[in-house]
Amino acid sequence: MNIKHLKIATTNSQIKYENRDDLLLVTFDQPANVAGVFTSSTMPAAPVTWCKNSIKSGSAKALVVNSGNANAFTGKDGEEIVSQTAKTAAEILNCPQDQIFISSTGVIGEVFDYKLITEKLGALASNLENNEESLTKAAKAIMTTDTKEKVSHEICQIDGQEITISGIAKGSGMIAPNMATMLAYIFCNANISSDVLSELLKEFNEDSFNSISVDSDQSTNDTVLLFATNEASHDQITSVSDPKLDNFKQNLKKLMIDLAKKIVIDGEGSKKLIEINVTGAQDKAQAKYVALQVANSPLVKTAIAGCDPNWGRIVMAVGKSEVPTSPEKLVIKIGPYQLTKDGQVAPDYNEDHAHQYLKNSEVKIAIDLGIKDDKNNASSVWTCDLNEEYIKINKDYRS
Amino acid sequence: MNIKHLKIATTNSQIKYENRDDLLLVTFDQPANVAGVFTSSTMPAAPVTWCKNSIKSGSAKALVVNSGNANAFTGKDGEEIVSQTAKTAAEILNCPQDQIFISSTGVIGEVFDYKLITEKLGALASNLENNEESLTKAAKAIMTTDTKEKVSHEICQIDGQEITISGIAKGSGMIAPNMATMLAYIFCNANISSDVLSELLKEFNEDSFNSISVDSDQSTNDTVLLFATNEASHDQITSVSDPKLDNFKQNLKKLMIDLAKKIVIDGEGSKKLIEINVTGAQDKAQAKYVALQVANSPLVKTAIAGCDPNWGRIVMAVGKSEVPTSPEKLVIKIGPYQLTKDGQVAPDYNEDHAHQYLKNSEVKIAIDLGIKDDKNNASSVWTCDLNEEYIKINKDYRS
Repeated sequence: MNIKHLKIATTNSQIKYENRDDLLLVTFDQPANVAGVFTSSTMPAAPVTWCKNSIKSGSAKALVVNSGNANAFTGKDGEEIVSQTAKTAAEILNCPQDQIFISSTGVIGEVFDYKLITEKLGALASNLENNEESLTKAAKAIMTTDTKEKVSHEICQIDGQEITISGIAKGSGMIAPNMATMLAYIFCNANISSDVLSELLKEFNEDSFNSISVDSDQSTNDTVLLFATNEASHDQITSVSDPKLDNFKQNLKKLMIDLAKKIVIDGEGSKKLIEINVTGAQDKAQAKYVALQVANSPLVKTAIAGCDPNWGRIVMAVGKSEVPTSPEKLVIKIGPYQLTKDGQVAPDYNEDHAHQYLKNSEVKIAIDLGIKDDKNNASSVWTCDLNEEYIKINKDYRS
Repeated sequence: MNIKHLKIATTNSQIKYENRDDLLLVTFDQPANVAGVFTSSTMPAAPVTWCKNSIKSGSAKALVVNSGNANAFTGKDGEEIVSQTAKTAAEILNCPQDQIFISSTGVIGEVFDYKLITEKLGALASNLENNEESLTKAAKAIMTTDTKEKVSHEICQIDGQEITISGIAKGSGMIAPNMATMLAYIFCNANISSDVLSELLKEFNEDSFNSISVDSDQSTNDTVLLFATNEASHDQITSVSDPKLDNFKQNLKKLMIDLAKKIVIDGEGSKKLIEINVTGAQDKAQAKYVALQVANSPLVKTAIAGCDPNWGRIVMAVGKSEVPTSPEKLVIKIGPYQLTKDGQVAPDYNEDHAHQYLKNSEVKIAIDLGIKDDKNNASSVWTCDLNEEYIKINKDYRS
């Protein structure tokens, strides 16, 4: 692994899972610069509240993540788990407590003994590694109902220096709060100020993790952190508009979209990746709003599960968004096939072609709102189909 | 039937269904006063656009409804169907065209021959009836994927006169645009101006048809019309604050909520009626917003399908609404059981009790946001569970 100052260890904590690693420690030889985005839920889990505070320092020595318990809606007990974790980690790693970042994912509302974490931290700190397998092990340790680990890498350049960006994520149900949440951690060896990291993260988060939806629900624990170890020898980047950052930006965005799509593909019960591209909106925000209305429509998602090119449901979803378009302006395509024209079904539309196209595992829906012809007024959103498997996963009474 | 000036006839149109009545004609001996509320979709079906225009006259001679085809996203052809229907009905009934109200429900985007309606109108007008069975026949004729007809009656008083209010509705999937929509027609023999009817309808619509959700999708065809035949001998009510209206208001609201709940109970795949009561909000609108966030959460709805008192999902849904509450303020109850206290699970909460309660066919969830203690800052919303049956109904490829 090319990010040499990054070290990783995982273990089993017995918080929930019996036979797999579910506790992750990531450390940085020298404090990394860090930026974060978090759930906008008014019921944030204790570790989210902790991180929102620590992120102000912009500096990270370590990251501790457990899966199996979200430490959400756990009151004072939950705060105690977080503060004991930070205190112990800071002592072992000899750093201020606000350089310790913490995440949890799993069941809501159940308290666990903080010693299940704190008593493992010493051993984890003695077993830190940095090899080809490390990130994969980290990605596995943070999984809940995910069926596979999610890892992405990109290589790029800043000022002639080779920069590695590596990310891990977990999802599964945009959120299934009893056993899931969206977490992503991105690491790079670039030398970038935390302010610039923060601007980049917020911008690209809109087009990646904030542009996916499995079931329209948002977790109490969602967290994305971006770390830069500063080990590359280029001068520190302190302005987001520095042209030296162009290639890095492009690759960071690509990696974030890749991780986001991996979350959707592995969404609960998901059998298809659906990309919804909206163009011709008044502005980009409106395009995204309409795309999410379509992406979150249970009727659109079930139709696609059944390979049914039921475009009336797409018309319905656009209509309920109440953006100022009209049937005559609207053009809907499924894959290469145009479905609508002049406020009616397109004259050469062949339903069987569209039906066959929807049998693919990745399908694209294009919607032109016809409001304003400007290529910037567009948005892409990813979602998955809604099928019996999602219901089965989420309905079964917890045993 | 006590509304003597109301006459009803139904027949089979061959628009879609082979062996059932799917075309309804309702007439009024003397033009009735009328008010309406309609879908806010920007893709309204042709008959909705027609009614939005006609409603300005406040006067109705007849209502024509077909099921099986929504006449939505049908362009100029769709407008022709509506104008030919109005023209023919107005000729037969000897009235202005804007006294003809029209609705359609069924598949989107398919044009049909308007003669399938217009050539039936003469026979329908010759077979008008008013007996115990008439409203039931009308309610059956407007069904699509509904499994049973929806009819409600209330008897009340205005100024010492007995007033009958009778309503019919259809739903099934807050909307399943390929085969459904929400339609409701309410009739009474009171003498009330169309302006007052309009104010009453808008007010009570918020607490009834606008407080239900089967799947968060909104149709292109949603229509609610309220007719008053004026045959009662009391003086015309021309002010919504007239105290003579108090008993009528109470009964109209009750009837509208009853019809709305019947739609939810018969929602696609629905096995449980879920009532969500939110209190302690900043205002009534905020209470309703939170209630709908919970009602539309697929994770809450699937948990209840599985009789799983997974209150973490309710916390999640309240949190994602982003209203300014906090875990410590929030009190959640399932039926009589309090689940949360002081930002944690309530100390005497017994999961098995809640699990047993959720086996009922009607379940209640109470959420106090703890923001403002005012009994008016409350809202009730009704929804149904989300289960495999919904997916099955909506996924199957149309044959």
